[in-house]
Amino acid sequence: MRYKLTIEYDGTPFCGWQKQNGQPSVQETLENALKIALRHPVELVGSGRTDTGVHALGQVAHFDADQKVDTYKLRESLNALVRPNPVSVREIDFVSDTFHARFSARQRVYLYRIQNTRFPPALQNNRVWWFVYPLDEIKMQQVAQMLIGKHDLSTFRAAGCQAKSPLKTIDEINITRVGEEIQVEIKARSFLYHQVRNIVGSLVNVGCGKWSAADFESAFKACDRTRGGETAPAHGLYFMSVRY
Amino acid sequence: MRYKLTIEYDGTPFCGWQKQNGQPSVQETLENALKIALRHPVELVGSGRTDTGVHALGQVAHFDADQKVDTYKLRESLNALVRPNPVSVREIDFVSDTFHARFSARQRVYLYRIQNTRFPPALQNNRVWWFVYPLDEIKMQQVAQMLIGKHDLSTFRAAGCQAKSPLKTIDEINITRVGEEIQVEIKARSFLYHQVRNIVGSLVNVGCGKWSAADFESAFKACDRTRGGETAPAHGLYFMSVRY
Repeated sequence: MRYKLTIEYDGTPFCGWQKQNGQPSVQETLENALKIALRHPVELVGSGRTDTGVHALGQVAHFDADQKVDTYKLRESLNALVRPNPVSVREIDFVSDTFHARFSARQRVYLYRIQNTRFPPALQNNRVWWFVYPLDEIKMQQVAQMLIGKHDLSTFRAAGCQAKSPLKTIDEINITRVGEEIQVEIKARSFLYHQVRNIVGSLVNVGCGKWSAADFESAFKACDRTRGGETAPAHGLYFMSVRY
Repeated sequence: MRYKLTIEYDGTPFCGWQKQNGQPSVQETLENALKIALRHPVELVGSGRTDTGVHALGQVAHFDADQKVDTYKLRESLNALVRPNPVSVREIDFVSDTFHARFSARQRVYLYRIQNTRFPPALQNNRVWWFVYPLDEIKMQQVAQMLIGKHDLSTFRAAGCQAKSPLKTIDEINITRVGEEIQVEIKARSFLYHQVRNIVGSLVNVGCGKWSAADFESAFKACDRTRGGETAPAHGLYFMSVRY
């Protein structure tokens, strides 16, 4: 049987999704709970890694087990076993053996949240990037549209990226103001390492007036990471959902 | 000069608003910062106490100081000095000497957030009350309307309440579903001790079907705390704003 899990987590206390020796990861937290619940070890395959501090509302992972257990009861067990770690299994479904959390993904959605206020966040500490200079979300939205489609995104690609090619297709970027927040939603089949955080870092340069639209365009077209904006911090980023 | 502060805080690490010997309070955190910024001690008068774990987006407080300092700079200083405590000064304004954060208040607004899902909160841990049984927010809204106006609210009054009378006037109650959350907003000039949390505890009894509307009414009319629902936990409660 192949099981599909939809997972929420607060990334703050984790070294990220991926297991790493001696550091608390979301993957290991869940694998430990699964081992107890199923009475044998399983390997959890995530739809994508997330970095230290990055949050998820809809990370997806799959695992295989011989037995067919009640998914409702399994979810209850896992959510009890992972406490007090801030991880929740939102859904468990049976899927066909051809389903693969990573390779079957057709679209991933990320959200980046910026608290755009002069005063620092208190309740949203570690949940948003605090950016003090006023941001023009309309300019940000306009300039972002040049990234839609298939492009060489080397300007937004971090060192250590394991993708073979810097060519990626972005389906959609929506930038909106929600109260005191600027929210950047990006949809694509797959992403380069730090791609969302590097795009956001360049977009705020336009939003705060440091860059013109032409500056953004020339940085993007340079296909050179050193021309891009700074990497936006991990704790503003949310892995929202995967479409298969 | 009288200064008015509008304050946001995450209630989790505090014993509440009010100073208490040896325990971290929001009031003391801010008074310590003010003492450094102004170079003399001041007493901060809050518009109302909040309990351990209760959050605020718009707590209001005032203090007096001889000197007239730049409010923009003072806010910057205070927000730097209180770190890493999850407190933020959102606004500082000069007010007349007749203004009193507590006694001049004409209306206070509280919000109570309930995450109504089978799975526990991960990202909203300590930010919402997790309630697993499905809640009917329409029934809750209907039954809540009998509380509007001036009534004896003894059923919702905690032991230790210092108010002279159990009579209070509730201006408005709005209960809505926002995604996976049920949000209860209550507006009134003033509140009895634990009034919002005790009302929410009784409303969820109706929402989950444990109580009929008639059960709620008879509990309310009994004017007897032992007839009311349980006290909803502190960490779902937000002090939103004060109108003067």
